[in-house]
Amino acid sequence: MNIGILGGGQLARMLALAGIHLNHRFRVLDPSPGACAARVAKQIRGHWEDRNALDQLMATSDVVTFEFENVPANSARYLASQRAFFPPAQALEFAQDRLCEKQLFSSLGIPAAPFQRIDSADDLSRSLAGIGIPAVLKRRTLGYDGKGQVVINSAKAAPDGWEQLGRTPCILESKIHFRREVSIIGVRGQSGEMAFYPVSENTHRDGILRYCIAHPIDPAQNEAQHYCQLILEHLQYVGVLTLELFDTEQGLVANEIAPRVHNSGHWTIEGAATSQFENHVRAILGLPLGETSARGFSAMVNFISTIPRAQEVLAIPDASFHDYGKSPRPGRKLGHATICTQNSARAIQGLTQVLRLAAEKPRTM
Amino acid sequence: MNIGILGGGQLARMLALAGIHLNHRFRVLDPSPGACAARVAKQIRGHWEDRNALDQLMATSDVVTFEFENVPANSARYLASQRAFFPPAQALEFAQDRLCEKQLFSSLGIPAAPFQRIDSADDLSRSLAGIGIPAVLKRRTLGYDGKGQVVINSAKAAPDGWEQLGRTPCILESKIHFRREVSIIGVRGQSGEMAFYPVSENTHRDGILRYCIAHPIDPAQNEAQHYCQLILEHLQYVGVLTLELFDTEQGLVANEIAPRVHNSGHWTIEGAATSQFENHVRAILGLPLGETSARGFSAMVNFISTIPRAQEVLAIPDASFHDYGKSPRPGRKLGHATICTQNSARAIQGLTQVLRLAAEKPRTM
Repeated sequence: MNIGILGGGQLARMLALAGIHLNHRFRVLDPSPGACAARVAKQIRGHWEDRNALDQLMATSDVVTFEFENVPANSARYLASQRAFFPPAQALEFAQDRLCEKQLFSSLGIPAAPFQRIDSADDLSRSLAGIGIPAVLKRRTLGYDGKGQVVINSAKAAPDGWEQLGRTPCILESKIHFRREVSIIGVRGQSGEMAFYPVSENTHRDGILRYCIAHPIDPAQNEAQHYCQLILEHLQYVGVLTLELFDTEQGLVANEIAPRVHNSGHWTIEGAATSQFENHVRAILGLPLGETSARGFSAMVNFISTIPRAQEVLAIPDASFHDYGKSPRPGRKLGHATICTQNSARAIQGLTQVLRLAAEKPRTM
Repeated sequence: MNIGILGGGQLARMLALAGIHLNHRFRVLDPSPGACAARVAKQIRGHWEDRNALDQLMATSDVVTFEFENVPANSARYLASQRAFFPPAQALEFAQDRLCEKQLFSSLGIPAAPFQRIDSADDLSRSLAGIGIPAVLKRRTLGYDGKGQVVINSAKAAPDGWEQLGRTPCILESKIHFRREVSIIGVRGQSGEMAFYPVSENTHRDGILRYCIAHPIDPAQNEAQHYCQLILEHLQYVGVLTLELFDTEQGLVANEIAPRVHNSGHWTIEGAATSQFENHVRAILGLPLGETSARGFSAMVNFISTIPRAQEVLAIPDASFHDYGKSPRPGRKLGHATICTQNSARAIQGLTQVLRLAAEKPRTM
């Protein structure tokens, strides 16, 4: 089959690498010259709003998917009207607008931080009293990697926050006190079949995921899986979906969804029986899903801004190395390493060594 | 790095798929239009004797390797004189000539079937008395998948055998009575570091490998590993090498070597911590080798002449599917499936199901 992907970054590349052995062909639509996925897929250079480029992609694709959630709504609608397009365009609407996302959680009875819709400075000062301090003001759209949000620590600071985000539609959320951040990756096939990966424990810094740990069994698994399942079923979803949650004293609190393969699931390439990438490919093609069980203890570290030499990473026992071949730039994800082993102490040891190479401080060890 | 491969079949494709995430680029030299590996590597169309084609390959390669042992000796010498060329050209000489191969086993004290060099019909009838009946007459060069050999069951049949193989230099071997055929895959890095995969038990029919079973622990492991190590060290080998052996009442008897990644190691993609393909790439680039331990029980089935639909294969629990995208032809390897699981009963169950799809009868179940 021919699979078209909106976006040609590392996620598209890992999708292609997970589908070529099944004899599928990939084509990516991306405006950047020499996109990361172009090594394993034909690239159509163009913007995601460009009707000609979309037509070109469709001309050679039996099914179209995407590697990022900010697919322009018009493009998603256009593609979905002409081709098999998965995950469903509706999932993009929820993922693109934090207000809709919160309303989705709320309608499904999934715990989430108390929130208010903010359309003006007045809304903000009024809502602050109800939500309490500290609170987080988030743009409703186009936020990622911690961008497009600001913590408000006092009523006096509110107008500044509103200015800072550009006086654009926002939501105000109560700031959650959590013990840890986790995510769960679920996949739903065209027949309604579902599978869930072990929960990943995620450590962020400056809003960017730094490293993950995935145990075969996590105390948050059942609860996280239940919430993820509610969303997959409600959206009649097809493909991989990621749900990020805060683990708090009161239980799990949903943070956001990503209707796609996710950085916190990169460990599944080596660490799970079937990777998130292969399962996404299987789902959108209507193939049976693969086993999602863990092969042991896994940890994944992102290489951001700089990347070590393969020599150094692969000298660490149980380490795998992924170099996306992207030119370095501050804050850019250039690659990652995964440690996968049967022994949890050895996993932590490997993780510590990789973190050192990534010049990343472990949070708690 | 840029890696050149002589041959663009499924082995080259799996090598490329195992090296792209490390940010390496692959180029294959193959005369056939649309070689199987061309989906993930740039193909140079040309013959392996063609000096221009070899020069083209070298112009864009930091290191050159091969996916088949019948690399013309002149080409191997030419490449090795100009570029990093691994495995060493010397290994090709042993693998290309059954007489040299037997002499290698013998010089290293590795048990092998008694043999005689045969250059004439007279040699054959003289040697038959010493070797005994039944015996196997094998062309010294260019044999693979059971081709280029004939079993001689009586002295009377000898002249026919000699004619059948084209009166070409041969060896005559005593026919070994074995309980099973096994292979061991070893890898040696540029620093002399070595690693060995769990032994695979192989079932052939009509001289072609049909299916393999690899347990985490096999009674033949230590002996097989010892022989493989002797060869790797003797040849100052770099890369993956496969040693095929007969398991007999008297212990292991070496059959042949393949100085390359091997069909009996396809299970390592899903079933081992690091695949044979990635370890070959690591070895030829001077990178540290990866863990070779088994992730459980694995079984691999070849799809020969015909290939089932992905839908059918992936519906089998714990099954992975590889479709090489080759057009069907009698006797052609078109793909394979691997079952990898923690549970040996489940592995056998999965294997039985895949064998049914492959229209392949299990030998003993």
